[in-house]
Amino acid sequence: MPSWENNVRKVVPYTPGEQPKIQGLIKLNTNENPYPPSPGVLEALSALEADSIRRYPDPASGALTEAIAAYVGVTPDRVFAGVGSDDVLAMSFLTFFASGRPVLFPDITYSFYDVWADLFRIPYETQKLDADFGIVNRDYFKENGGVIFPNPNAPTGVLKGLEGIREILDHNRHVVVIVDEAYIDFAQDAELVREGSGIPASSALNLIDSYENLLVVQTCSKSRSMAGMRIGYAVGSKKLISYLNDAKYSFNSYTMNQAAIAAGCAAFRDDAWFRECTAKIIRTRERVKKELSALGFTFPDSKANFLFVTHPVLPARELFARLRRSNILVRYFDRPGIDNYLRVTIGTDDEMDALISFLKREVEAL
Amino acid sequence: MPSWENNVRKVVPYTPGEQPKIQGLIKLNTNENPYPPSPGVLEALSALEADSIRRYPDPASGALTEAIAAYVGVTPDRVFAGVGSDDVLAMSFLTFFASGRPVLFPDITYSFYDVWADLFRIPYETQKLDADFGIVNRDYFKENGGVIFPNPNAPTGVLKGLEGIREILDHNRHVVVIVDEAYIDFAQDAELVREGSGIPASSALNLIDSYENLLVVQTCSKSRSMAGMRIGYAVGSKKLISYLNDAKYSFNSYTMNQAAIAAGCAAFRDDAWFRECTAKIIRTRERVKKELSALGFTFPDSKANFLFVTHPVLPARELFARLRRSNILVRYFDRPGIDNYLRVTIGTDDEMDALISFLKREVEAL
Repeated sequence: MPSWENNVRKVVPYTPGEQPKIQGLIKLNTNENPYPPSPGVLEALSALEADSIRRYPDPASGALTEAIAAYVGVTPDRVFAGVGSDDVLAMSFLTFFASGRPVLFPDITYSFYDVWADLFRIPYETQKLDADFGIVNRDYFKENGGVIFPNPNAPTGVLKGLEGIREILDHNRHVVVIVDEAYIDFAQDAELVREGSGIPASSALNLIDSYENLLVVQTCSKSRSMAGMRIGYAVGSKKLISYLNDAKYSFNSYTMNQAAIAAGCAAFRDDAWFRECTAKIIRTRERVKKELSALGFTFPDSKANFLFVTHPVLPARELFARLRRSNILVRYFDRPGIDNYLRVTIGTDDEMDALISFLKREVEAL
Repeated sequence: MPSWENNVRKVVPYTPGEQPKIQGLIKLNTNENPYPPSPGVLEALSALEADSIRRYPDPASGALTEAIAAYVGVTPDRVFAGVGSDDVLAMSFLTFFASGRPVLFPDITYSFYDVWADLFRIPYETQKLDADFGIVNRDYFKENGGVIFPNPNAPTGVLKGLEGIREILDHNRHVVVIVDEAYIDFAQDAELVREGSGIPASSALNLIDSYENLLVVQTCSKSRSMAGMRIGYAVGSKKLISYLNDAKYSFNSYTMNQAAIAAGCAAFRDDAWFRECTAKIIRTRERVKKELSALGFTFPDSKANFLFVTHPVLPARELFARLRRSNILVRYFDRPGIDNYLRVTIGTDDEMDALISFLKREVEAL
């Protein structure tokens, strides 16, 4: 090894979820939305002008934070936008978890939390889920340097109701609490999504006026059908957002490109599209739950756009491989406690029918 | 102050370069390209499909690294792409400057180097420029944890020739050396840019086959007229690029959105456009040098798309304010050693004529 390599930071290489280009592949492995984004998004991209491309973007992504603020019903100074919720979350770890005391999050959860903590040398303690994959509130009452959890949790899909979140917040007035709501838009009955504000009753967005230390992080990757545009955002008190902006501006002024800003604005303008696609996915999910139950699969009652399934006889690892050979791609995590589960994204009805037919044959062959 | 704020990382808020929306403003403050990007870029954005937007992008930005590799004349596994060169540089600091020994860079240079070093707790020592704003090679021969400098340097525009870079590399075999070439495409005679490979003779890209520890960072923000798309890239040995990818994948898999990938590919396909715009800017720069000299301004011999000018009688700070009031925006750095200089981006010939007319009146009024 040449000597310069001694100075290099060595990490365990991580392989991102497969994005293979196989014709006819049924891709249920990365929780993408099976429906296209609002037609307005493509129009906005076509309407981009040369002058906008040759110039630096607005570092505050003002047009986008205004569009998000209008949707949430807050002032734009309570919204922060970033390159996917990964960017927003990493920036939030850096900004808000600086006490030196351990940050608390579930042991089975989004796999980047411990990575960002290590990256920024933030100590952390993971808390066990209960037997039903639920987050145990009292585990988050001890002294800590901050709390973060996804709601619904990933990869389980389990939702904590608003009262549960409130209880965690009431015990954590002295630290920042981050609720990572990548999947929250799927946490509604189909009926509810089509009426009212569009914000699910269980979203922590309903609590941001009561807790100055609450940051809610969402994304356009799932319910807005724009994983390819990398748009995430945080909503919270003016103070929290101001700290995030200070941190961002201090070391990378320009992150969101003009295309992401334009696409994001267009998506938030088309509320009807968002509600319709979300409602369709919820309906499909509830139907698939019934069909998979009938085949003997069990799963926590997911409120996300995926199911986390296990079967008493069919081993998950083998099933994953057989599905893969049949061009149906799902996600398998080779980790203790969840290594007999598959995470299956909710696709179109046709895609789910193909999956169910395959699984039916597997079960019948037992 | 509520107690949760004690846990928050406090930084000195940084105000990014102004992006005002004033009609008729002559904007010479952020080194943007005055010419539009290749028409192919807008076509590529219009051609984006819904399926590409709803899906996660290729985490390796394969299409883009292939296009860049073809331009540079290397294999794609020697190219890394990121969200602007700021993203690529920050990732490079994190990955390559992990020895614990101080990293060396000039005292007058790109203002984010010390910020990223502080962010990742990397020690550093700045090295003084000489009286002509030149980087003194022997200052970089001491033991260190890595070397980084822009070439041409910013905000001076001073270019170090290939032999100078080679000498620094020969004295730094045991660390990673990063040459930050945001402005290198303007470091050619107009004639040379129109012929040959398009890669300037003074680019460290000409040395990457000789030094495994050399990383060259470039950007599409300046010479490719795409500051608004946030595209930067690094070229080096296969090993260096592999380390960068490992670091990136370990904590943020998806950074470049589909629009940036498509726009970048289109820009690298249109070499004629790139050469023509670059040649125009170089011609304008050389003419402006003569006109400003005639008015009594002095400046280092810039090889970038900006001039770093000072005047023996007109104080820079006042001149900056008067220009601003006349809707001509340039950049003023209130920092010791350079606080009587203005950084003036090379715009179109018309824009530069307006600037020169204004300055002529100022000088005549003395």
